[in-house]
Amino acid sequence: MNEVRVFAPASVANVAVGFDILGFAIHGPGDEVVARFVDQKGLSIKTITGVGEKKLPLEVEKNTAGYSALKLLEELQETDRGIELEIHKKMPFGSGLGSSAASAVGGAFAVNELLGAPLDKKALLPFAVLGEQIADGAYHADNVAPSLLGGLTLIRSNEELDVHSIALPQELYASVVYPYVEILTKDARDVLSDQVSLTQCIKQCGNLAGLLIGLQNEDFGLISRSLNDVIIEPQRSKLIPHFAKVKEIAIKKGALGYSISGAGPSVFALSRGEETAKIVGKSMQQVFINAGINADLFVSPINKDGATRL
Amino acid sequence: MNEVRVFAPASVANVAVGFDILGFAIHGPGDEVVARFVDQKGLSIKTITGVGEKKLPLEVEKNTAGYSALKLLEELQETDRGIELEIHKKMPFGSGLGSSAASAVGGAFAVNELLGAPLDKKALLPFAVLGEQIADGAYHADNVAPSLLGGLTLIRSNEELDVHSIALPQELYASVVYPYVEILTKDARDVLSDQVSLTQCIKQCGNLAGLLIGLQNEDFGLISRSLNDVIIEPQRSKLIPHFAKVKEIAIKKGALGYSISGAGPSVFALSRGEETAKIVGKSMQQVFINAGINADLFVSPINKDGATRL
Repeated sequence: MNEVRVFAPASVANVAVGFDILGFAIHGPGDEVVARFVDQKGLSIKTITGVGEKKLPLEVEKNTAGYSALKLLEELQETDRGIELEIHKKMPFGSGLGSSAASAVGGAFAVNELLGAPLDKKALLPFAVLGEQIADGAYHADNVAPSLLGGLTLIRSNEELDVHSIALPQELYASVVYPYVEILTKDARDVLSDQVSLTQCIKQCGNLAGLLIGLQNEDFGLISRSLNDVIIEPQRSKLIPHFAKVKEIAIKKGALGYSISGAGPSVFALSRGEETAKIVGKSMQQVFINAGINADLFVSPINKDGATRL
Repeated sequence: MNEVRVFAPASVANVAVGFDILGFAIHGPGDEVVARFVDQKGLSIKTITGVGEKKLPLEVEKNTAGYSALKLLEELQETDRGIELEIHKKMPFGSGLGSSAASAVGGAFAVNELLGAPLDKKALLPFAVLGEQIADGAYHADNVAPSLLGGLTLIRSNEELDVHSIALPQELYASVVYPYVEILTKDARDVLSDQVSLTQCIKQCGNLAGLLIGLQNEDFGLISRSLNDVIIEPQRSKLIPHFAKVKEIAIKKGALGYSISGAGPSVFALSRGEETAKIVGKSMQQVFINAGINADLFVSPINKDGATRL
């Protein structure tokens, strides 16, 4: 085998009540990465197509996919192998959908597959996290873990990369809407107070635990009552135009819950069943379009596969 | 049937990472409450024996067991029925083991049983919470819910009494040690800051989620890593003499985790298997005794029954 092509999906981090510790993957959009053996020694990036064509660096050490692949090759003591990557960015930057995480996952996963999968998927996590850190500055796995492993993932500790898959009801669907507005990462961070009240913290803990027990017991009422972020959403939602109106219509149309995807501007709803998720998603998208803001809609069950060979 | 006797067990609230939202019941100690029909109309308390003999009020409206029973009778429109209660307090006050909650549960549960169980157990929760509020001032269910329903319970919201039982591994045992020292409720509250850093809150959320996923997957390593309270314990543990030393020996002897029971002074450890729990518990108790502080030890699996007829 001389070449592999892989897909690494977009992901929704935070999931309302799991700031920095929860994330789930969807089926699309996502990035494709091709890895192939070449004669020239060492790792190189041949081309970047799609959304990132002119924005992303071709230097391996500055590119999220390149860096994660490089770190993996170092671990495997295979840096002399001649390998080139093609990165096909099929999802937007700065959307809050884990674009850099998908590329980072794609790089490490593609190279691992090309080499005959010497490491299992979970073992690739640290390399993908290092790759995303190139773009993001922070060492955290709330997009990388779901994009790589699929499903809803808990990152108990980012420092320790203590990551676990959470069992889910089959009927859970996500409606994700990406409105074409820009939120600077710096603004998304600056808007957050570094203190929370003990009362808010207890409420958030109650809702987080409620979400997990609701998912375990397939108790959709409990899931719905629990999808209520009292800490991050009230602070960050002001950066997203029409946030409250979109939320109102999502809940009215039957969503179990609604919040910000990652740092935004994308928003997401969770619904029971595909039909509701489609109705909810279209209604959410329409609010942005009616306000003159272009918006993409993605409706998907939770993607249980994560990164896959194509 | 003219008389019933019930048992309502002690409970451990907070469970390290679930301040105000988690609690579990143990098999002993606990309170016994007798309810019987009498000729004289209305509810009365005939006697209180044991620990509370001279401290607890015999007036129905001022007594936790009496008040919870009264509120239930009001709901059932049975306040004219002649019923008397005997309250046999078989557990210490102010121990952090849910003494007032056990009495409150006992009162409502005994009267409900005497009347032929018109309400199911879970429906008794609001009355028991009202009973405990008489003693405690606060409307919260983190002791009442486990004492009534058994097991480990989540109180997603105390206001809404949104309460759920959490499935547990069979092998989970608690070692609870009550050292004979007094902590005033006021001090236990005053010592807590009403602000938490966002970083601490995220860590606590990660550990709370880790505990729940660990219990669900019977992943004892994850349970152990997760039983780490970064918010309450660092503030309250200073009120409990030798806290750190007891913790050190509990972990050294094989406990999965250790923390304060409720507001203290009792402390608890969770272990895998009875044998470890006994060794852990005796070692914990010995630290207090060596320091000249009397201490009671209770080793118990998690009590899945909660309040029971005797």
